[in-house]
Amino acid sequence: MDGQDEENDVLLLERTASSFFRYKEFALEEFWRPRILRWESLSEHQKQMIPWYNSYLEDVHDAIETNSIFYMNLLERSVKLWGLNSDPNLWAQPSGTDMRKTISMLNQIAREWSTHCEEERDQFLLLLTEFLEEKFPSDRNTIKILIPGAGLGRLAVEMVRLGFNTEANEVSYHMLMNSQFIMDGGLQKEQIALFPFVHSFSHHINRAEQLRQVNIPDMNIVEEVGGNGLLSMVAGSFPDLYGPNVNIKQSESYSNSAYIREVRAANRGSKHVVITNFFIDTCSNILDYLETITHVLKVDGYWINFGPFMYHFEQDHQTEMTADFDAYTGELSNILDTPLRGIELSHEDILEVATTHFPFKLLKQQTNISSSYGTNKLDISMLGYQCSFWVLQKT
Amino acid sequence: MDGQDEENDVLLLERTASSFFRYKEFALEEFWRPRILRWESLSEHQKQMIPWYNSYLEDVHDAIETNSIFYMNLLERSVKLWGLNSDPNLWAQPSGTDMRKTISMLNQIAREWSTHCEEERDQFLLLLTEFLEEKFPSDRNTIKILIPGAGLGRLAVEMVRLGFNTEANEVSYHMLMNSQFIMDGGLQKEQIALFPFVHSFSHHINRAEQLRQVNIPDMNIVEEVGGNGLLSMVAGSFPDLYGPNVNIKQSESYSNSAYIREVRAANRGSKHVVITNFFIDTCSNILDYLETITHVLKVDGYWINFGPFMYHFEQDHQTEMTADFDAYTGELSNILDTPLRGIELSHEDILEVATTHFPFKLLKQQTNISSSYGTNKLDISMLGYQCSFWVLQKT
Repeated sequence: MDGQDEENDVLLLERTASSFFRYKEFALEEFWRPRILRWESLSEHQKQMIPWYNSYLEDVHDAIETNSIFYMNLLERSVKLWGLNSDPNLWAQPSGTDMRKTISMLNQIAREWSTHCEEERDQFLLLLTEFLEEKFPSDRNTIKILIPGAGLGRLAVEMVRLGFNTEANEVSYHMLMNSQFIMDGGLQKEQIALFPFVHSFSHHINRAEQLRQVNIPDMNIVEEVGGNGLLSMVAGSFPDLYGPNVNIKQSESYSNSAYIREVRAANRGSKHVVITNFFIDTCSNILDYLETITHVLKVDGYWINFGPFMYHFEQDHQTEMTADFDAYTGELSNILDTPLRGIELSHEDILEVATTHFPFKLLKQQTNISSSYGTNKLDISMLGYQCSFWVLQKT
Repeated sequence: MDGQDEENDVLLLERTASSFFRYKEFALEEFWRPRILRWESLSEHQKQMIPWYNSYLEDVHDAIETNSIFYMNLLERSVKLWGLNSDPNLWAQPSGTDMRKTISMLNQIAREWSTHCEEERDQFLLLLTEFLEEKFPSDRNTIKILIPGAGLGRLAVEMVRLGFNTEANEVSYHMLMNSQFIMDGGLQKEQIALFPFVHSFSHHINRAEQLRQVNIPDMNIVEEVGGNGLLSMVAGSFPDLYGPNVNIKQSESYSNSAYIREVRAANRGSKHVVITNFFIDTCSNILDYLETITHVLKVDGYWINFGPFMYHFEQDHQTEMTADFDAYTGELSNILDTPLRGIELSHEDILEVATTHFPFKLLKQQTNISSSYGTNKLDISMLGYQCSFWVLQKT
């Protein structure tokens, strides 16, 4: 990592920590205060129709307080660990997107680490376990699994529980700081109370559902997987760390220092299995992900995918610089200002490219598997996504 | 309507017409051009993996062209009819929201007027028809039905086909101009080709689904319902036109001129049935809708509801002026800058208020009815919404 990258990294880290620090202020301003104003604007006649509304808003306020305590505990543990300045007021300011991520993180935590979302997790986990147990009946600690976009680490922990040597890769500091605290914070089972659904005022059968408390984590993680040395976490961009040194253009998610080129060379053909779970639609260019999965897998290795095709950059108006890189001179050429959106392949397109232009053969596929994706399954929520499942083998 | 209102109205109408006029320019800039740039930024190596991509983008371009022809035909017919200036360049400029509505309108057209979405429409229509046929076995032309938020008029036409005297109320000029053209434009069955799904690049099993052509309307509407005098369309805000003259605060959707107060008084107890279909979550204050439904229904009349609780203003940061109005002096008091979001009641909350503070008794209710809401049901789309159905009777 060069000086420029390191500086960017500190900035990103500070913005993330700062967004946790300001969660309460943001959530109250965004979700609670306008509703107090709206309630106060009602006529006495209408106020009497919903006399419970004021105390309901107090419950919303309390729930935000409780969520805020979680983030303050996280920061208390994280400041030293991540080398942050001890005065939060000196950290770089978070963006609106950073703040909205602190909200969605709470849903993600419930999704991965509460019993509430067990059914949703099991949809993929059962398909995955069935396949892996058949292919690898024994000596699983010699089998190397890579999970890019590992999020808060739940799926990686499940793979370790099955005995596999598992590498979890994640690029988002919001995810990394949360997973570090949840997985290594020595938390007891269900120690922490959260109200992950409090920020959503639509789609409820009754308001109790919005105010549903969830306790996390649903296991003592250290007891389950600590000390066996099977789990590792790697921070960074998936193509940057695991991709080939050719065929991918330099961009914000793929750099070309001598150091990173060595990391990538070392990762070549190093994994028996790559599992992409709600991940492949997070790319700007899915062909870069295909290059990367192909590069990091051993011959005969498996790529197992589950998730929808909700391309994250589909509606993003930002651009990034992309360029060709000359490995000998280090020179950049064909420097372009490139939209982040634009290469959104369908289920069939991806399988066609993977089996004709990349060395994969199709073993299994399944479409239209409904997933609630962390919504509050007991309310009248949005229905979630239809997911695809496939297993490809590198030939 | 006073001079100020009239001026606002012309402005809104011009912005709407202008958004149709600029659809092609907007859609190409938003959906097509960034993808051409992204495609061109790929290396030759990656371009060869998806050699069909360039011609696929040409298909996207052609589909946008075809949609644009629909809007140009609509304008050709509408300019005189709506009293618009004959030079589109002199119309008020559309906002970003106006432009995005031209996109979602095309989905709405498919939803209401194509065979493609028949199954979705039938979910509510079958429940509704069963109830109405039982309650009103004969003399239906004396039974007055009101449909607020009537959209493009399909449900109103279905009620007329059953023989009911039907009033369709709608406030959006995007809806009104489209429904006017579709319903009164003398269109032959399936005369118009549209590509309503072309703007969505996510959630596809294959790209043919994105490029699916839909033909509208699925009937000759004039032949079906023309000339029997059972259908009327009324433009304006639902509480403004049909609400009581007390208990609702003055706001952008509820005014207090002498004229409108007379209109409301005349509408009191005038309807046998009010049908709200994907409507009750469009309000800023649902209690105003409850006041209005109660006011416009006859004693023993029915309120039939179908739809989700996806409150349209939940994430809207705008405010509006609300105030109390003195009917004798015309003076305003308690003038407040009021958030549009803030009163989002759940299924159970609404039924409780309706049956305790309003004179309703509950006849039927059903929850968790899945609806695809105009998504392209043949692709791996988002799953849509869970809907509630209920019938309340005014006592």
